[in-house]
Amino acid sequence: MTSVDASPTDIARLIISCPDQPGIVAAVSDVITDLGGNIISLDQYSTGVAGGRFFQRTVFHLPGLAAARPSIEEAVQTRLAARFDMEWSLTDAGTPKRVAIFASKADHCLLDLLWRHRRGEIPMDIAMVISNHPDLADDVRPFGIPYIHVPVDKGDKAAAEARHLELLKGNVDLIVLARYMQIISEDFLREVGAPVINIHHSFLPAFIGAGPYRKAKERGVKLIGATAHYVTKDLDEGPIIEQDVIRVSHEDDVAQLTRFGADVERAVLSRAVQWHCEDRVIRNGQTTIVF
Amino acid sequence: MTSVDASPTDIARLIISCPDQPGIVAAVSDVITDLGGNIISLDQYSTGVAGGRFFQRTVFHLPGLAAARPSIEEAVQTRLAARFDMEWSLTDAGTPKRVAIFASKADHCLLDLLWRHRRGEIPMDIAMVISNHPDLADDVRPFGIPYIHVPVDKGDKAAAEARHLELLKGNVDLIVLARYMQIISEDFLREVGAPVINIHHSFLPAFIGAGPYRKAKERGVKLIGATAHYVTKDLDEGPIIEQDVIRVSHEDDVAQLTRFGADVERAVLSRAVQWHCEDRVIRNGQTTIVF
Amino acid sequence: MTSVDASPTDIARLIISCPDQPGIVAAVSDVITDLGGNIISLDQYSTGVAGGRFFQRTVFHLPGLAAARPSIEEAVQTRLAARFDMEWSLTDAGTPKRVAIFASKADHCLLDLLWRHRRGEIPMDIAMVISNHPDLADDVRPFGIPYIHVPVDKGDKAAAEARHLELLKGNVDLIVLARYMQIISEDFLREVGAPVINIHHSFLPAFIGAGPYRKAKERGVKLIGATAHYVTKDLDEGPIIEQDVIRVSHEDDVAQLTRFGADVERAVLSRAVQWHCEDRVIRNGQTTIVF
Amino acid sequence: MTSVDASPTDIARLIISCPDQPGIVAAVSDVITDLGGNIISLDQYSTGVAGGRFFQRTVFHLPGLAAARPSIEEAVQTRLAARFDMEWSLTDAGTPKRVAIFASKADHCLLDLLWRHRRGEIPMDIAMVISNHPDLADDVRPFGIPYIHVPVDKGDKAAAEARHLELLKGNVDLIVLARYMQIISEDFLREVGAPVINIHHSFLPAFIGAGPYRKAKERGVKLIGATAHYVTKDLDEGPIIEQDVIRVSHEDDVAQLTRFGADVERAVLSRAVQWHCEDRVIRNGQTTIVF
Repeated sequence: MTSVDASPTDIARLIISCPDQPGIVAAVSDVITDLGGNIISLDQYSTGVAGGRFFQRTVFHLPGLAAARPSIEEAVQTRLAARFDMEWSLTDAGTPKRVAIFASKADHCLLDLLWRHRRGEIPMDIAMVISNHPDLADDVRPFGIPYIHVPVDKGDKAAAEARHLELLKGNVDLIVLARYMQIISEDFLREVGAPVINIHHSFLPAFIGAGPYRKAKERGVKLIGATAHYVTKDLDEGPIIEQDVIRVSHEDDVAQLTRFGADVERAVLSRAVQWHCEDRVIRNGQTTIVF
Repeated sequence: MTSVDASPTDIARLIISCPDQPGIVAAVSDVITDLGGNIISLDQYSTGVAGGRFFQRTVFHLPGLAAARPSIEEAVQTRLAARFDMEWSLTDAGTPKRVAIFASKADHCLLDLLWRHRRGEIPMDIAMVISNHPDLADDVRPFGIPYIHVPVDKGDKAAAEARHLELLKGNVDLIVLARYMQIISEDFLREVGAPVINIHHSFLPAFIGAGPYRKAKERGVKLIGATAHYVTKDLDEGPIIEQDVIRVSHEDDVAQLTRFGADVERAVLSRAVQWHCEDRVIRNGQTTIVF
Repeated sequence: MTSVDASPTDIARLIISCPDQPGIVAAVSDVITDLGGNIISLDQYSTGVAGGRFFQRTVFHLPGLAAARPSIEEAVQTRLAARFDMEWSLTDAGTPKRVAIFASKADHCLLDLLWRHRRGEIPMDIAMVISNHPDLADDVRPFGIPYIHVPVDKGDKAAAEARHLELLKGNVDLIVLARYMQIISEDFLREVGAPVINIHHSFLPAFIGAGPYRKAKERGVKLIGATAHYVTKDLDEGPIIEQDVIRVSHEDDVAQLTRFGADVERAVLSRAVQWHCEDRVIRNGQTTIVF
Repeated sequence: MTSVDASPTDIARLIISCPDQPGIVAAVSDVITDLGGNIISLDQYSTGVAGGRFFQRTVFHLPGLAAARPSIEEAVQTRLAARFDMEWSLTDAGTPKRVAIFASKADHCLLDLLWRHRRGEIPMDIAMVISNHPDLADDVRPFGIPYIHVPVDKGDKAAAEARHLELLKGNVDLIVLARYMQIISEDFLREVGAPVINIHHSFLPAFIGAGPYRKAKERGVKLIGATAHYVTKDLDEGPIIEQDVIRVSHEDDVAQLTRFGADVERAVLSRAVQWHCEDRVIRNGQTTIVF
């Protein structure tokens, strides 16, 4: 799970899931080999042999990948998907995900993503940064990325979301909420056509909703955490991608918890975005598999 | 917080709490010095200068401590407690806390406490192990500690608690629930006259109640944890003493979470018991201060 | 890497390594499928596509494994090993490794292995405990495992090693040095015919040799650690299987570092032994691959 | 150790060290109280009661601190330093340390310090950034801090150090080497008159010198780390302030270790600089005390 997929020329990733049954690994290997591909890595997981669901991420090298893509897709569909009742997707590791980042006033998650992107750590193209505030424009501009200020009027959130959809539909593969302090509507999620990753500033399912650091102080916990998850219509209930914690003590007030928490938030969100962009994360109901 | 208080002859610990105001540290230092004591360590914490509460743990060496105790207590009462509206307690580091451990069938927390006690890591005398099952008797006996089997009849829990009170009242300073799988009644807590520490097998406040590892699996968390807390009448709501977590993945089923969790549980409970026995833990409403 | 291989009936593990080249994963899958096996999990690693070495651990279910073993071995040899210049081994997950544990006077690593073994966490049979001291016999006996006292005379270490070889040769698959405080000779390693795992009480390569906690105190490190490694003729230089650390402070003296370190040592050694017994660890020169 | 000292008006920090003997804590408390000060926090440590050395950090509030400073210094000197053979320093928490940061081409440690400084997390004034390369100028400028390019000619390092001394002498209280890839000479250390903190990209004392991530890969360690330490004339041997580690696996190549390590480096260096700027770090021979 830890290493970055480097040198992505002619590298494909095949993600599959299907009811578990004998022979899937071998069948996938055969198809890839028959197509002239060489398997570089292969991860698989089953929720249970009898009646369970099987998941596999296969990375393979295939010279002339772009030209061969239609024949690969046909082979997967006819020889695998039909036989195993399979859901699948095929991505070219050389095509970075197009990402939009949403932020509000806090800079830590946004800057960490921009820094890592500039250093080449995350295989993504950042298409735009969208914010309901103008504050962070000067921080984003030196990175050469458009900063789009879309104010959100409390009385007319739909207008802002309509503007968001104009900007995003068809243009991005992933939306990252980097401490964006607005609720995303169910309509938006349905229409935008791309997964949305959020960072919540607590160790979910503890401290759902607003003010988690204040709640953590009141409860007297000895660790605080952060959670990156896919956004669903249920607030803070989406499938968890990554979590981490940091030790705190009775001495730390809410302001200090917020400072410590910022370090955990940015680390957790960056890992979640990287893994998603490397096609390592598969949703399985209300949970995720992270290969 | 980390080091063990060794060589406890003539070492006293004075724990105080009072409304915060200027001059408390100096006043305490003066009293101890006037009595012939030498301050070895001093920790303090205030919840806020204006209107806040002040807490201090002072460890000092005073030759002939046992004989001098009445005069120390008088000095603390008249020169400190009266002036600062102070709650306080004075303990002799050479007098270990008398402890009863409750267990059911799981051995990991119990064995870890017995083993650390034998190594001299925790300044306590284990007076007895009480269990609602006979299973662990053979494990406890080699440590030379009484194992008392008190079955709990579902229809008459009061009978078991009456037997517990007979065994415990006046005989112990601390009760440790080392994965004891019975609810403790409010009556018992009121009557037993000693604090009760429990280990809960989740990172509270996540997964309160029964089956936390199953709930953790269902929610798809990426870390599981354990929490040691004082028991109050509200289930899993008492002041938290210590918590820790361990990383898990989608591959780990509930049985594996339970195994990983066992390691965290025993570590967290042992630290909480050690700190309590060293008078490092002070309750502050629903939270604790751990010096 | 984290989950225990449970319910091992008719489960085989095939471990291979060979020069990397295209087609290995598919070829292995084909052979297993042709034999009637179903691949449960498959991990692979290459040190580099051009000129690198390839490693794979494949776990598969094959009904009637015991009877089919000769035909599996023949197929692997003729269809895989010959073609890919492969080193390989095949183990039956239902046959636990036979293990001898060496200890001296410290009980923490030994007891932790015995506890975990009794709870069924590690798939091994502990054939015997060998010690150069009689001290721990009473701790071992309740577990129903032979405790064999082989004193080591400083002037005639060869006599003790001869006795060890008598006990061990042909009888065990793994030797675990659980804080055994004697140097193992090169002759012994060559003759005993089983791998030897040691726990060193430092974060190697820091603090090689005797007295690592004293050296750690003198150097003023802020973390101390432990390292489980295969024993080679070069002291503390063997391939590392697992390491971990714990935070310490200036307050902690050498005795306290030793106490904290004991917790890390037992955790690290237990993980290394478990992974070895599950055939997850493959030696690669002076390093290991841990699947 | 964890909380930031906030609202520093009229807050003083008194750091002392002296041979240990009874009565020091009380004597310090008396002097501060007599001067009209109120002790806010007090940490102390002794290397041993008999023949040991005693260290204390006392933070106190004293209205009109700036005006009262001469009288405080006189009282400390005459009533404490003379009596206890004490080394001491007194700082005003409202006067941030003046800091120069040295960098080369890597941006991660530098950016993290600049960003934390802007957020107000570290009580320092960054007087200048000095680099032997021009590369990072554009990153530094938006923070409003001078970026001074001082090329280092291999054949004439003395010229560069002379330029450094011109810039630094009398102008800064602390020098931070944020992955500055040049050896600092003994002459420079003696003349510059300010402590120098370096971040080394390994868990010292493992992997001293150049190329620690390559060495870590070759040795096959399972954790990599970073160490912040005061620079002395002996390379990588100075007193350690802070260390941390991150888990890696056989899959991670040197480039990936370098990326993971960067996260640990920036975290460790930022903590070390913060603690130094809060006067929490006291040197004790080749080690440090961190209150």
